Amino acid sequence: MRMYDIIRHKRDGLALTAEEIAFFVHGYADGTVPDYQASALAMAIYWQGMDDAEVLVMTSEMRDSGKVLDWSDLPGLKVDKHSTGGVGDKTSLILAPIVAAAGVYVPMISGRGLGHTGGTLDKLESIPGFQVHLSEERFRQVLASTHMALAGQTEQIAPTDRKLYALRDVTATVESIPLIVSSILSKKLAEGIDALVLDVKCGAGAFMKDAQQAEQLARALVKVGKRAGKKMVALLTDMDQPLGRQVGNALEVVESVEVLCGKSNGVLAELSFELAARMLVAADAFVDLAGARQKVRDLIGSGAAMAKFEEVVAAQGGDPDSLHNGTGLPRAAHARELRAEATGIVQRIDAEAVGMAAMVLGAGRSTVADKIDPAVGVSLHRKVGDPIQKGERLATLRYNDAARIDAGQARLQKAYVIGPEAVAKKPIIRQVID
Amino acid sequence: MRMYDIIRHKRDGLALTAEEIAFFVHGYADGTVPDYQASALAMAIYWQGMDDAEVLVMTSEMRDSGKVLDWSDLPGLKVDKHSTGGVGDKTSLILAPIVAAAGVYVPMISGRGLGHTGGTLDKLESIPGFQVHLSEERFRQVLASTHMALAGQTEQIAPTDRKLYALRDVTATVESIPLIVSSILSKKLAEGIDALVLDVKCGAGAFMKDAQQAEQLARALVKVGKRAGKKMVALLTDMDQPLGRQVGNALEVVESVEVLCGKSNGVLAELSFELAARMLVAADAFVDLAGARQKVRDLIGSGAAMAKFEEVVAAQGGDPDSLHNGTGLPRAAHARELRAEATGIVQRIDAEAVGMAAMVLGAGRSTVADKIDPAVGVSLHRKVGDPIQKGERLATLRYNDAARIDAGQARLQKAYVIGPEAVAKKPIIRQVID
Repeated sequence: MRMYDIIRHKRDGLALTAEEIAFFVHGYADGTVPDYQASALAMAIYWQGMDDAEVLVMTSEMRDSGKVLDWSDLPGLKVDKHSTGGVGDKTSLILAPIVAAAGVYVPMISGRGLGHTGGTLDKLESIPGFQVHLSEERFRQVLASTHMALAGQTEQIAPTDRKLYALRDVTATVESIPLIVSSILSKKLAEGIDALVLDVKCGAGAFMKDAQQAEQLARALVKVGKRAGKKMVALLTDMDQPLGRQVGNALEVVESVEVLCGKSNGVLAELSFELAARMLVAADAFVDLAGARQKVRDLIGSGAAMAKFEEVVAAQGGDPDSLHNGTGLPRAAHARELRAEATGIVQRIDAEAVGMAAMVLGAGRSTVADKIDPAVGVSLHRKVGDPIQKGERLATLRYNDAARIDAGQARLQKAYVIGPEAVAKKPIIRQVID
Repeated sequence: MRMYDIIRHKRDGLALTAEEIAFFVHGYADGTVPDYQASALAMAIYWQGMDDAEVLVMTSEMRDSGKVLDWSDLPGLKVDKHSTGGVGDKTSLILAPIVAAAGVYVPMISGRGLGHTGGTLDKLESIPGFQVHLSEERFRQVLASTHMALAGQTEQIAPTDRKLYALRDVTATVESIPLIVSSILSKKLAEGIDALVLDVKCGAGAFMKDAQQAEQLARALVKVGKRAGKKMVALLTDMDQPLGRQVGNALEVVESVEVLCGKSNGVLAELSFELAARMLVAADAFVDLAGARQKVRDLIGSGAAMAKFEEVVAAQGGDPDSLHNGTGLPRAAHARELRAEATGIVQRIDAEAVGMAAMVLGAGRSTVADKIDPAVGVSLHRKVGDPIQKGERLATLRYNDAARIDAGQARLQKAYVIGPEAVAKKPIIRQVID
């Protein structure tokens, strides 16, 4: 078998055989298939696609290129959530404690954010002492004792996917649904989960801006995940504007705690609770969704979900007291208000521009080497559809480095569009795919 | 400017700007653009194509990545011929002396053959003493004194095209018309010619098996060459069966000498003479084709063309006496006849299979490191449309290594298809594109 023929077959529209896909993945893993052949294949896949059977093999081979975790000694189905990512998305911090508080194991392995704002790991690290680098043994202890654990991906999880993703990232071959599906699922399947709830973002601030493409991705993820023997459900959710009101690592922890304490009932709470309920059903903890939703409300109302979050923070070395009213979390030294230049209705808040504003202040990375400032970010006082008077506060920029504030403000300014028309609020959940 | 964006633009169907193409070529030349980005771009070009303006810039940049020869001190237009290659194609050896004998300068820089049979250089090297490695100064002396010179491409000619071609060869991106055009023309334009006649082969034994694709390639070559300021004409010619009757390096020199001496008037002579006449018109030596054709016949009839070949052989260190009746050329020690297994008409001679038979005997290379045996090859006594009786000679295999003869014979056997139907002989020149 020659890599040349595999590229040519895909270029010419053939479905690759399981042997061909295995040859590629193993060869790319051990270096006998060079980057330049892998990138040519990725571009051929970009054009010709892959059928479900090919994606399933690609996913399995990528998963098996590294360590596959196994929690079968713990009772019940293990469940996780994966989001395709968006600005202000902190649902993981809310739903994981809820599901764990219901007695379902959530072995949550997350990535870091590159660009825009930080990822789940960066948000957690804004909690003083919180440790995201856990040995497998320690991860198992935390998971067993608290029903959840939150850690970063190690080099051992699907290493060939990691290598291929880095290559796709510099060869304009990221935007291929079969490659996205195998990349996401190979990592998630390596976590040893039985069920996965997907939050596929759609809209101007999402990776998938086009509703049809987002739906296509969601359907492919659900289909291939099911063929891999996992329980799967996907929500298509709105990312035309940032999710919630806080963007920036410690700020997002504060907002998550508010939701966990039942003090916030906007779209962030709505989406987080629905994802949690879907996870409970996917994990067979509830047969019907209504019961699961009631359970989520109960766990919030009783304080059990917040208690679970404090428990896991303590288990992973963090200071749970820091969470009370957010007083123990890093706070930015300075704030600058962004005020409306006209009276009207907020027509649009460009999520990417808000993310870029937060990044400019130091909340995100433009290169992997950048260090994040956990305290800084943006608080949005007005969302799409809200009325505003000229001169009123639209948002607050929270910053430490005075040299960055003007650039951040300029970006945030551009994010808001104010106009005369009334704007109908869009539902946060557009569609459910299972 | 980032290579990532250039790949993405092409992937998304945009025409690349001149700056983007220059950025890629310069970056690939100096190594700042890695192979894996170049191969992804090549695959994107495979899919999205390039318009004539893009191909022109790509051609110019590739040409300028190395040395561009300049013969402007010699009078008149300089002309060359390029063929897309086929089995038994030795027209260069015939037409170059004809055109030079007419007083037009032919600075001919050729490649070697990989696979099948040898290239023009390999054929010339079967002449004892013939030197194809000429310094630029020596090449200029030979060209100035004899109106022609025959040499191999140096590392200095379009080195970035050479690098990219090697990459395309292992990433299934060779078969892209814009990339083929820029590759061929960048090398030919670097030779410092003013006019180029193209022999685009078409049929079962050609790189372009499909007539429509061959025509598309010919049209693109002519169009882009003209936009680069060159006089261009292309002949679409038949390569369903080998060209002429001899396949193998010294054997092809012998056949070329026969044509130059006017002793052969089959399709090889027909095509070589027509290409030579087209070269004379392209070089402005004749206004009308009829006059050019007459001149070609005159140069053959008078012995001037053969005398020119002997002159250039001598100028490049070879022994012209070796050419008389072929007695001074390498001859294979053994011969084996291939005889017809049935009575009928030759329906088909698979040119690729004949090339492979010759290669098995040692006439070609399967890797660049292989050494060619100049003496061996195949003589075809029957061509398509010829009648044959069972037991009569179809072809002769000429060999030195007894260990290879059975494999060579088996391949040659498969090349011939004999059947009952009469076969209309196809014209060698299918179409002229200018």
